[in-house]
Amino acid sequence: MFYEGSEKKAEIIIDTKQVSLLTYSDEFWEAVVAQSDAKILSKISNDEVKAFILSESSLFVWNDRLLLLTCGNTRLVSSVMYFLAQVDKSAILQLIYQRKNEYCSHLQHSHATVDTKQLQTLNDGKLMRFGELDSHHSYLYHLDNDYTCSASDKTYEVLIYNIDKKISSLLSQCNIEKSKVRDLLQLDKLIPGFDLDDVVFEPIGYSLNAIRGRDYFTVHLTPQAKSSYVSFESNLNLIDIIPTILSIFSPSSIDVVTFNENGFEAKIMEAIPLDYKANELVEERLSCSYMVHFGSFSRENKVFTKSTNISLEGVCDVF
Amino acid sequence: MFYEGSEKKAEIIIDTKQVSLLTYSDEFWEAVVAQSDAKILSKISNDEVKAFILSESSLFVWNDRLLLLTCGNTRLVSSVMYFLAQVDKSAILQLIYQRKNEYCSHLQHSHATVDTKQLQTLNDGKLMRFGELDSHHSYLYHLDNDYTCSASDKTYEVLIYNIDKKISSLLSQCNIEKSKVRDLLQLDKLIPGFDLDDVVFEPIGYSLNAIRGRDYFTVHLTPQAKSSYVSFESNLNLIDIIPTILSIFSPSSIDVVTFNENGFEAKIMEAIPLDYKANELVEERLSCSYMVHFGSFSRENKVFTKSTNISLEGVCDVF
Repeated sequence: MFYEGSEKKAEIIIDTKQVSLLTYSDEFWEAVVAQSDAKILSKISNDEVKAFILSESSLFVWNDRLLLLTCGNTRLVSSVMYFLAQVDKSAILQLIYQRKNEYCSHLQHSHATVDTKQLQTLNDGKLMRFGELDSHHSYLYHLDNDYTCSASDKTYEVLIYNIDKKISSLLSQCNIEKSKVRDLLQLDKLIPGFDLDDVVFEPIGYSLNAIRGRDYFTVHLTPQAKSSYVSFESNLNLIDIIPTILSIFSPSSIDVVTFNENGFEAKIMEAIPLDYKANELVEERLSCSYMVHFGSFSRENKVFTKSTNISLEGVCDVF
Repeated sequence: MFYEGSEKKAEIIIDTKQVSLLTYSDEFWEAVVAQSDAKILSKISNDEVKAFILSESSLFVWNDRLLLLTCGNTRLVSSVMYFLAQVDKSAILQLIYQRKNEYCSHLQHSHATVDTKQLQTLNDGKLMRFGELDSHHSYLYHLDNDYTCSASDKTYEVLIYNIDKKISSLLSQCNIEKSKVRDLLQLDKLIPGFDLDDVVFEPIGYSLNAIRGRDYFTVHLTPQAKSSYVSFESNLNLIDIIPTILSIFSPSSIDVVTFNENGFEAKIMEAIPLDYKANELVEERLSCSYMVHFGSFSRENKVFTKSTNISLEGVCDVF
């Protein structure tokens, strides 16, 4: 069974003199995510942030910003357009919209360029691609304005592909207990002191939101054997935990995206083991002041494998 | 300007006791390739083979087999279905249909799995994928029968991506002379004694067919700066000329597919320079007796580059 784990991502920063996002009701956010064909499944919150687990990934809402991640075949751009229509344009300080290369882009409703053309009807933005078209890459659209981010406004994304088959099988067990996945992820070690909320999906899949004050940490796990994918995102420095992630999952490839991590080059070279090679290394200072780094690494293959049989029976057009 | 260089490929082997393909008229082949939305532009021939340059790639016809390569947004499966309808089913000894990962699979009319389901309505075949879904890969469909190939029935495909920018610029000059491209390709050295036929496309692009007795050699060059691609295919051992190809084009990645090259592992390791790393290595003996190898290699990146700006103006949905 194929499932597109890759998330589309929107981050919107708001002028709190005009709007306070924490005053918006859960029903408002339900309506926002419904535009992406997603539903709210669960929620935790504290004084700083509301964290919703969705049927496809996560929504985080702070007073001054929202972060919406949706995977599968969702239409995130529709949620963004809907949200923008509810808020005075002058209150939108920045909008960053990202799409990673998908396993099966031909099965998606739209392409990143099509999404951003829709966003562009309301805004004046820039689109760029981090990474080559035939390799792992990430499209990033942002408003081309004079927004200046805080140096402490950091984001870390770690995305892994084709995880170890034993871990994939373990995580593909029906009704696997949350505690087993939490133990596997070594959450006690990785994010001590966070409030946790997690969901095990039917038939397989797992999502976690974790918050501590303004800090957030989210994991989305798509264990499907032939298209496995796990994403980690946080404002905490995830580069530090890459060795742990690789030791747990042993993926064939790993992509890292950071915002405002100025020590990227030195830290990433230390964190990535020698058997992984850099296919893409990109550094860009956006005109809206964020410093963005993208690195894509894959494990060098030294042993011949067999081909993958694709069933021509049944309903699935992919596997 | 985006152009999908990646070819779809069909090879059909015929029982010459029933059918002799060399007796078919050029008008017949025009009708076959028209089903792919392609046209015949040029032809050379000898006693063994007819070689047609198409508006999108090439067609080779021998007495006992045909090889049809079509790039861009063509519908190769339609040509194959049309051809199969003209020939008695018992005369078809083998059909191999291949599709490489495309730069932009979302812009194609169909996916490999959809094509092969169409082929499967007439035949009993197998589909497999060489290489992982998030990496370079090649789908291969073949008839699942007791066909036994000759050990001398060898095919070599060398496919390169993101060629050196200076070479891309040179080859993107309007009305570049054929002789310049032939010199660049070092054809005198690579294929001495072959009859050559080549076409320079408007505004850019180049195709070459070359034949010598039963031997064939074909090159298709898509020099577009942001999606450059060059393919080489022959029954001659192209592994031997990989160092020359890499020294000319300096691509970021190279894929190699061979049929019945039993010394693949040792030869490829010798031919690929140390700064390229293997992302995929696959070996499979097909049930129809061919030994197929697939290797995908990319150059390790050690230097950070800038992101690629994507225009949001104009008609192109990709660049």
